[in-house]
Amino acid sequence: MARVFVLRLGHRKERDKRISTHVALVARALGASGVVYSGEKDEKMEKSVEDVVERWGGPFFISYERNWKKWLEKFDGIKVHLTMYGVPFQERMKEIRGKFKSRDICVIVGSEKVPAGIYGMADYNLAIGNQPHSEVGALAIFLYELMDRKLKEDFEGAKIKVVPQKKGKKVVKLNS
Amino acid sequence: MARVFVLRLGHRKERDKRISTHVALVARALGASGVVYSGEKDEKMEKSVEDVVERWGGPFFISYERNWKKWLEKFDGIKVHLTMYGVPFQERMKEIRGKFKSRDICVIVGSEKVPAGIYGMADYNLAIGNQPHSEVGALAIFLYELMDRKLKEDFEGAKIKVVPQKKGKKVVKLNS
Repeated sequence: MARVFVLRLGHRKERDKRISTHVALVARALGASGVVYSGEKDEKMEKSVEDVVERWGGPFFISYERNWKKWLEKFDGIKVHLTMYGVPFQERMKEIRGKFKSRDICVIVGSEKVPAGIYGMADYNLAIGNQPHSEVGALAIFLYELMDRKLKEDFEGAKIKVVPQKKGKKVVKLNS
Repeated sequence: MARVFVLRLGHRKERDKRISTHVALVARALGASGVVYSGEKDEKMEKSVEDVVERWGGPFFISYERNWKKWLEKFDGIKVHLTMYGVPFQERMKEIRGKFKSRDICVIVGSEKVPAGIYGMADYNLAIGNQPHSEVGALAIFLYELMDRKLKEDFEGAKIKVVPQKKGKKVVKLNS
């Protein structure tokens, strides 16, 4: 399989700091290679994501792009925009999974409002339900389906790891 | 099928306003009946969810419970706590879906830290991957699987509705 990147549009430092962090955590947990974000540069948010990668492993990056349009135009792969106005994602997943065997994917998620031009730039405008939604929830379901419902298990360079428990918490240190 | 409720623990007005709203939006879009939250009472957050229900339909409620412990003890149904420390959810979904035919489900999601007692109160502590995650993303995948990967389509009393588009947005008014 090729790689997945997430493009997070219109980040606002104050309003979106936690939502954008959740976008990045979901992207990482579900096997994406990294998140590119635009809007306001936010070093604190970047650091909180990098801290997770440092402790729990990667590879995973987060990087800022002032000119997301140029970045997206240059992106060599399939551009999937998640939007409540799009077509039901179930109708396109098989096709997209097929292409994903050989081509990278960029999943685009906006914040409150996305620039109108994005609908034309995307190869697919997909709705995870045509209801007001969360970009975090929509991204989670899309990546889950894209990865054939298999969660990523191996994270390189992890310093700690969870040992699954029926009740309570268990975290062990790893030698890496 | 029975009903699904989401219990959101430890809401902090300032820090969690948008995350808790996203929890509620995901719950509604994926077919839950409502969200009960504890922590700090937040009328603004409640109103933003109620506004969505008013325009996009329901039924869906959001309500505050100061004493979530008492509420959860009284809850007559299956208690599922989503946590990165739990057992892989895939191992339990079939069993839970079976019980769900006749019993209500309460899905518990915490914020940063959950009270230790919750692990013992839950019938299942399930991990949507044992990685740092988003409660919004975890809830989305859990509900998606619980509902047999079918998204809710009919919302009662909706005033507006999306007409899915390959490019762009189309929203129509409904007579209701």
